[in-house]
Amino acid sequence: MKADTIITNIGTLISLAGNDKPRCGKEMESISPVHDAALAIKDGLILALGSSTDILNRFSCTDILDAKGGTVLPGFVDCHTHPIFVHTREDEFALRIAGKSYVEIAQAGGGIRSTIASTRDASEELLFQLAAQRIKKMISQGTTTLEAKSGYGLDTKSELKQLRVIKRLSEELPIDIIPTFMGAHEYPVEYKTDHERYLEILCEEMIPAVAEQGIAEFCDIFTEAHVYSIEESRRILQCAKDHGLKLKMHADEIEPIGGAELAAELGCVSADHLGTTGDQGIAALQRAGVIPVLLPATLFSLRAKSYARALPMIQQGLPVAIATDYNPGSCNCDSMPFTMTLACLQMGMSPAAALNAATINAAHAISRGAVLGTLEAGKQADLCIWDIPSLNFIPYHFGSSHLCRVIKKGKCIYSAG
Amino acid sequence: MKADTIITNIGTLISLAGNDKPRCGKEMESISPVHDAALAIKDGLILALGSSTDILNRFSCTDILDAKGGTVLPGFVDCHTHPIFVHTREDEFALRIAGKSYVEIAQAGGGIRSTIASTRDASEELLFQLAAQRIKKMISQGTTTLEAKSGYGLDTKSELKQLRVIKRLSEELPIDIIPTFMGAHEYPVEYKTDHERYLEILCEEMIPAVAEQGIAEFCDIFTEAHVYSIEESRRILQCAKDHGLKLKMHADEIEPIGGAELAAELGCVSADHLGTTGDQGIAALQRAGVIPVLLPATLFSLRAKSYARALPMIQQGLPVAIATDYNPGSCNCDSMPFTMTLACLQMGMSPAAALNAATINAAHAISRGAVLGTLEAGKQADLCIWDIPSLNFIPYHFGSSHLCRVIKKGKCIYSAG
Repeated sequence: MKADTIITNIGTLISLAGNDKPRCGKEMESISPVHDAALAIKDGLILALGSSTDILNRFSCTDILDAKGGTVLPGFVDCHTHPIFVHTREDEFALRIAGKSYVEIAQAGGGIRSTIASTRDASEELLFQLAAQRIKKMISQGTTTLEAKSGYGLDTKSELKQLRVIKRLSEELPIDIIPTFMGAHEYPVEYKTDHERYLEILCEEMIPAVAEQGIAEFCDIFTEAHVYSIEESRRILQCAKDHGLKLKMHADEIEPIGGAELAAELGCVSADHLGTTGDQGIAALQRAGVIPVLLPATLFSLRAKSYARALPMIQQGLPVAIATDYNPGSCNCDSMPFTMTLACLQMGMSPAAALNAATINAAHAISRGAVLGTLEAGKQADLCIWDIPSLNFIPYHFGSSHLCRVIKKGKCIYSAG
Repeated sequence: MKADTIITNIGTLISLAGNDKPRCGKEMESISPVHDAALAIKDGLILALGSSTDILNRFSCTDILDAKGGTVLPGFVDCHTHPIFVHTREDEFALRIAGKSYVEIAQAGGGIRSTIASTRDASEELLFQLAAQRIKKMISQGTTTLEAKSGYGLDTKSELKQLRVIKRLSEELPIDIIPTFMGAHEYPVEYKTDHERYLEILCEEMIPAVAEQGIAEFCDIFTEAHVYSIEESRRILQCAKDHGLKLKMHADEIEPIGGAELAAELGCVSADHLGTTGDQGIAALQRAGVIPVLLPATLFSLRAKSYARALPMIQQGLPVAIATDYNPGSCNCDSMPFTMTLACLQMGMSPAAALNAATINAAHAISRGAVLGTLEAGKQADLCIWDIPSLNFIPYHFGSSHLCRVIKKGKCIYSAG
């Protein structure tokens, strides 16, 4: 049988192959490395995995890629990012370190409103070029699938503009990019004192337009005491659900106001952040099958004293996922390997659990668990070749990269050095 | 006048030019960026800095390097590393996360003793090749000067072997590598119950041999309750001083047993770690002019709850330096930019203070403050060209690298992409 590409001489293959479900509890500790392996690819999909001898016997192929004894892992799925904006906000980082408050930073022209202002003003071309550069950096860290949110427009025209940029990125860049509408990321300054009017615009204008154009797969919202209340969130998300969008939530990041419980009630695909979610919220997510997406780089970058309770979540049977939360304000981290380091050091997750969280569980958080996130026959050939002695090296080492190649749908899209 | 190389089109130049002394207090907040700059180089040294027009008028040169509007900073000085060993210890990282104790890890074949055993067994060639790979990764993160310690041999033959490897690295790699003898890194297993005998070997055999061969510039020691006591440390360091070696100490990392005070008493060039040093220790270092070298990546990697007191040190007039502490056990971080991120997020240092700490103050910590660490006429042309909007971006962003080129003594030794 003919293959398009065969990857041979894989020193260690960690396929995470298993059933189609999100990984929970002890399943997250399982990585079952296989040594001296090979992998055959056709039409961007994995045909078969096996020993080098077996694969070379079964398949004919002119394109042989030598992994040189490296370690092959599934490509990372970064399932929560905000990459569509103009300027980075490094000066706010310095102000935060100097002890300036959120209000002082906003008064100095910073904060999310500054991002919204410049994103509204920007051309689609500029937004595309800047985001493309950022996503290429993510690819160089091993990301092969990305979720990207709008949410820096906060008016119909600007939100649709951001979503068109995401659509173009998904067409022109070599990785899968899943679009999420997040018009409820904040209240825009013009409706700061008239929330009801902005809720009407969201529900009667923006969500219908997004749904009609088929330009987003998910709807996300920032549910938090000072932003969208539980009642407001229920109204917006129900509307999005009625329009056929799948749901995500920024829930319980700063205060546990019942975000996790609402995510469970509405059947969100994922509930994200969860920095303050307690036992009741965890139980609700578990019963409803909501994927918890934890974002430790944000809490690290905000100098948090405590992190999301990853271990109790895993013990309670939740299929924890992790993501970077790449954005210009609270977290300018574009690295899934470093997010694994933080998952281990700050949340106590094992390297194996962190890898499951960064691949297959993250794939489930964007409804892609059946087609990517593990390496098995029939799934997309999305993988990374690493020069590392074992999986543990990825969270253990930080700083320089030991990633050699990134393969997306069977094609090499990044090669180091 | 002729120059060997001119670097033009520097968008922002942060030279840190100033007096020859370590930077203290408010001086550490000063970076004075200059826009549209250029820099002339001859024989590896900086001839002049100025505007592009001025430099191109004053100097003739055929080798023009276009910085393409990038930001130029002094190269990093990583003034505390342990890169000479065989195997990395990523499995211990996983065991630590799983809650295993130091003793359990040692019983599982881990800990510093496993590094000592394999380093003793290794050929000089193997140690050289492995360290060279590691140091090339450090260069790719912007390090242009490195201090490297022995200390995984703990017998005369193996310590001298490590120091010969460091000498060969300094000859064959394109950066400055400063050698430090650290025979007192731990007690070797064969003298675990006979400290006196090992102290005799250190003072009567190892230090005299190291001094006679001129193969180390500094002597360092791990002064800590469970390793070398204050009395033992004084004896070893005094002996090293008598043999003409300059002094460093691993002081007060875990318990404040008076390490900082001893460093002050003996006139150490630097006292390193200082995770638990109190007001008295800080005052002693200040009076004696000892450079405090803080190693936040180690505490991060060890999941510490508290860090060295950088801000009180800076307020008390101490010229704080930072370094990676790259080693196979407690800290496998090879990145000075990420060490700056930690200096800001975990110790509250400003980006400007972190840059001064990572360059000019680190240069003083290895007695090189007069020849490198800032960019000014007469100093070595050791610099990095970055694609960043401002200095604040370096600690703000983490994950992928925005370093374009590394220049050592006027020659490009690393180029991204």
